[in-house]
Amino acid sequence: MTRFDITILGCGSAMPSTLHHPPSQLIDLNDKLFMIDCGEGTQLQMRKFKTRMGKLHALFISHLHGDHIFGLPGLISTLSLLGRTDDLHIYSHRELDFMLKPLLIYMGSHLSFRIHLHPMNPSQREVIYENKTIRIISFPLKHRIDTNGFLFEEKERPRHMIREMIDFYRIPLRQIAAIKAGADFVTEEGTAVPNNILTTPAAPPRKYAYCSDTAYAPEIIPYIEGADLLYHEATFAESELSRATETYHSTARQAAEMAAAARVKKLVIGHFSSRYNELETLLQEASEIFPQTELADEGKILSL
Amino acid sequence: MTRFDITILGCGSAMPSTLHHPPSQLIDLNDKLFMIDCGEGTQLQMRKFKTRMGKLHALFISHLHGDHIFGLPGLISTLSLLGRTDDLHIYSHRELDFMLKPLLIYMGSHLSFRIHLHPMNPSQREVIYENKTIRIISFPLKHRIDTNGFLFEEKERPRHMIREMIDFYRIPLRQIAAIKAGADFVTEEGTAVPNNILTTPAAPPRKYAYCSDTAYAPEIIPYIEGADLLYHEATFAESELSRATETYHSTARQAAEMAAAARVKKLVIGHFSSRYNELETLLQEASEIFPQTELADEGKILSL
Repeated sequence: MTRFDITILGCGSAMPSTLHHPPSQLIDLNDKLFMIDCGEGTQLQMRKFKTRMGKLHALFISHLHGDHIFGLPGLISTLSLLGRTDDLHIYSHRELDFMLKPLLIYMGSHLSFRIHLHPMNPSQREVIYENKTIRIISFPLKHRIDTNGFLFEEKERPRHMIREMIDFYRIPLRQIAAIKAGADFVTEEGTAVPNNILTTPAAPPRKYAYCSDTAYAPEIIPYIEGADLLYHEATFAESELSRATETYHSTARQAAEMAAAARVKKLVIGHFSSRYNELETLLQEASEIFPQTELADEGKILSL
Repeated sequence: MTRFDITILGCGSAMPSTLHHPPSQLIDLNDKLFMIDCGEGTQLQMRKFKTRMGKLHALFISHLHGDHIFGLPGLISTLSLLGRTDDLHIYSHRELDFMLKPLLIYMGSHLSFRIHLHPMNPSQREVIYENKTIRIISFPLKHRIDTNGFLFEEKERPRHMIREMIDFYRIPLRQIAAIKAGADFVTEEGTAVPNNILTTPAAPPRKYAYCSDTAYAPEIIPYIEGADLLYHEATFAESELSRATETYHSTARQAAEMAAAARVKKLVIGHFSSRYNELETLLQEASEIFPQTELADEGKILSL
């Protein structure tokens, strides 16, 4: 199985605390690093957890609140000091350009690589990135400003060929790829051999969904349905439900309701308000609805 | 004595490391906090060392390299989340306006206080801030871009009146202030009593000088002469002298030479290159020239 790991760099919220860092996480897909959100201090967290800056492939910014972006200038500057030459692709809302441009102009002549900003559609699901093994989809969340969630969806992998069948039916080498992709085999005598006799299914594609920041919003469910892992914000405990509603955030219980309704396999809650010194209440409130819940924490690695 | 403390929040340099944070420090003058430089993560360091955000009075930015300013957006945002209403004054080079404006516009409608940017003269000594007890002077350093050092200079305090002399010469209350300020006293008979019979000197005004980032530059000496404490960058050991010269930084030995030539009382070296895991060599090289040297460190408090 190829690697599909999520490392939490920060799972705090707007107000930093000594317990949690502003939002950021890394998705390690087969040794390529994809970053979601980049709060202040993200590059310091990368050093702390010894994640390789050189493997950073692309950045995905959910929305333009400061706690999700203030680590960008420092990260970009450090990548340049490290001599990066590969283009850096950043997927975010259009206005990031306006916010970053002066800094980039200022650093511009010294920057060792080029930055490409790819504006996302804030109101519609779309595939924003695709390579041989992965498809990354952005979809609208429900927050005070335009905010998108992300789905990292592994592509269907080829079925496994049953070695003995190649010999038995004398399947020519040039047809193997098609059969692995699902085709039947037709013998010289014209007999069709169904694919499921020749192959075994590949492991099902894995899916990781990221929903932060967002109010409780059932309209999101179709986008994250059946994910192996859902990271969902749980800024507040149920006692702060009205504050959650008012600020377009979720309670831990609401995060769990989303996980249950979307029939995901596992839920990780994060984006904790700095008011909580301990998170047992949040974990308990979520687990009552959705037992396969765990708390995010800086440095935690979740493997799919 | 009123408080005059310097707290080091970060004494690393451009490339962050797990050992040192980007540059920032706080000068606590009688319970008002003045900040010099604001690298990424400064607000997190303030929390870590339990310095009071509410006491932050004004900010002074030596130059516009990222490691000295990337903590500003997060700090400003947090001050606003905390509900600050006092205006915030930032003293820096003019271009900071251009770099921060888009972020401020973006946050603008939510910001709970006003920001005033005061452009500094990059090529000439000038008093940039003054209140009853302190005078803050900026002066040019020698770096790759416009960079200023800062001198925090306590004002002369009034002399102490010798209580018995008031009775002895029957000095009227209304003349006390003038005598404390240095005036002689003239008796009713017309005899002048010299001030030094009536008063004892106040404690000498204290001075703190900050020089970072800068190449070795003897022309700076007059600006920092006789300081009680000099913070001087010492990015490199002597073995990297050519690298220091090339990048307009100083070696520890050069910092010590500046301290000796300016006859300061004490030297603190900082802005350490991330290449050094231990700093004994730098301390030793500086101490050979100027024995009253110590190493900066995150969380260290230097009292004048």
